[in-house]
Amino acid sequence: MLRERFQGKNVLITGGLGFLGSNLALQLVEWGAQVTLLDSLVPQFGGNPCNIAPIADRVSVNISDMRDTSSLDILVRQRDFIFNLAGQVSHGDSMRDPQLDLAVNCVSTMNLVEACRKHNIQARLLYTSTRQVYGKPRSLPVDETHIPAPIDVNGINKLAAEYYHLLYDQTYGLRSTVLRLTNTYGPRQKISSARQGVAGIFICQALRGETISLYGGGGQLRDFNYVDDVVRAMLLAIASEECMGRFFNLGASPPESLAEFVEILREHCQFEVRQVPFPEDSRLIDIGDYYGDYSRFQEATGWKPEVSLREGIARSVNFFRQNKESYW
Amino acid sequence: MLRERFQGKNVLITGGLGFLGSNLALQLVEWGAQVTLLDSLVPQFGGNPCNIAPIADRVSVNISDMRDTSSLDILVRQRDFIFNLAGQVSHGDSMRDPQLDLAVNCVSTMNLVEACRKHNIQARLLYTSTRQVYGKPRSLPVDETHIPAPIDVNGINKLAAEYYHLLYDQTYGLRSTVLRLTNTYGPRQKISSARQGVAGIFICQALRGETISLYGGGGQLRDFNYVDDVVRAMLLAIASEECMGRFFNLGASPPESLAEFVEILREHCQFEVRQVPFPEDSRLIDIGDYYGDYSRFQEATGWKPEVSLREGIARSVNFFRQNKESYW
Repeated sequence: MLRERFQGKNVLITGGLGFLGSNLALQLVEWGAQVTLLDSLVPQFGGNPCNIAPIADRVSVNISDMRDTSSLDILVRQRDFIFNLAGQVSHGDSMRDPQLDLAVNCVSTMNLVEACRKHNIQARLLYTSTRQVYGKPRSLPVDETHIPAPIDVNGINKLAAEYYHLLYDQTYGLRSTVLRLTNTYGPRQKISSARQGVAGIFICQALRGETISLYGGGGQLRDFNYVDDVVRAMLLAIASEECMGRFFNLGASPPESLAEFVEILREHCQFEVRQVPFPEDSRLIDIGDYYGDYSRFQEATGWKPEVSLREGIARSVNFFRQNKESYW
Repeated sequence: MLRERFQGKNVLITGGLGFLGSNLALQLVEWGAQVTLLDSLVPQFGGNPCNIAPIADRVSVNISDMRDTSSLDILVRQRDFIFNLAGQVSHGDSMRDPQLDLAVNCVSTMNLVEACRKHNIQARLLYTSTRQVYGKPRSLPVDETHIPAPIDVNGINKLAAEYYHLLYDQTYGLRSTVLRLTNTYGPRQKISSARQGVAGIFICQALRGETISLYGGGGQLRDFNYVDDVVRAMLLAIASEECMGRFFNLGASPPESLAEFVEILREHCQFEVRQVPFPEDSRLIDIGDYYGDYSRFQEATGWKPEVSLREGIARSVNFFRQNKESYW
């Protein structure tokens, strides 16, 4: 039934060669959508042409940078659905080069919603934000009434980008929904870089047989989402009338510690684990334990995560072992 | 006692030729501070060289644009206090040219805090934000626990700029405080433009004897602050250890309606009043009634407004009558 909502539809995915974008594209192509992938392929970001190998001849790829408006004004036209997944996601990089984060996350998003306002007000948009907008949780689990208090530049800029979408929904009728993602992991993640989060780093180190360092004991709780669950969440959200003009947490229950994540990896790979103190630059932007309450989204769409952490890690390790040359 | 905190101190004011900046500079110069005013004099913003006529030979004026970093990296050095008042303040303009608002409010602020991080981490900063970050109030009076829900681009970008200051305070020890201003009015406001808010518009129309249009009856409640009260709030905040790393509402009690504001103007000027329906573009970003709870700031500093609306309007009309050629 969800499949029918997308069959034959015209879909644009920004950041389409990235981790989330490519997994989403695989599903949409399977369901018979016409898919265009927009990606800047900025080297330090997550775009990787290998991500779409299985569907390369069935999608249209457009390399351009959303910081420039010229291509956007063309690319948004005639789309039924636009998934806005492009962005800078590294918390650390956002502190080292805050102006770049601002340009990529805020200026680009503003350019996109402006292009839609001018050239395709009929489109439906979905924006992938981050739990980082909440900062260090004041109470757990974190639900959507938790006041935003971002503690890194990335969290601030992603929050502004969320608001642009919701503002254009409310003011101009550009129907938009926002998902606040938590720790997503799985096939096609750029695990060779530390920029896409701790799950990818651990998987890469485990595959390479490298020693994994757990900061401050590794007891920090996180809610890990397997990428297929996140893809389904995105599809449900953008198809749902009830999600328009609103923002939602994703999440997983129960939360698991980083140390548990690493323990499950040991079922597949051989490596050492070392306890180390927090490095100063990471400690400054660490948020402690985090897990979200996703009941608002479950009520709106029926979504809940279906892939357990054990199953998701097994599938991920399997994928990356079969595709070593492209990922690590 | 507050005076002594600033005597002989080295102060930078961004937006220093504007409404707030010039009134602040007048006080600081009187108290013996060395004051540098940074202003881009972008025509549609509030900067006006006439604003500092009484102190023109006792301040240093630097015309440059904070969107470029070159001058900022020099200008922040050796300052004891930096008042970051520059910005685009028009809600309507922020919707008509959102990228400009983003550049002026976010990029410029990021450039300033980065310049301070690199070249003067010892400085104390104050940032003037806006009640517009709250959007349409869910409950009144609005205190600082009210969740931000901006309903125009300006509110979104000012909120991001607040967060940059608080983040740099928390992460790098760049001590900063944020004041969320409400409707400020008084001498040196750019009343000839609709961009600086409804109080200035009404004062200008009253002085010119023009018909004043009240949208939707004029019953909307606002908390008007006379500029001298806001200047004192800024000085108290930046001098207060307790204010660092925090954000505060200003406000006035009791709130007054727009119609009441206009009625008080009638005690000084002759003009007609007309009731008109809300124009569509204004209605979209109108927030209904708004008045803030400023008790958090009062507890931290002892501040409360001292100039009544009747007194403030009298002083304003008097000032603008004496300085007609420069303002209307």
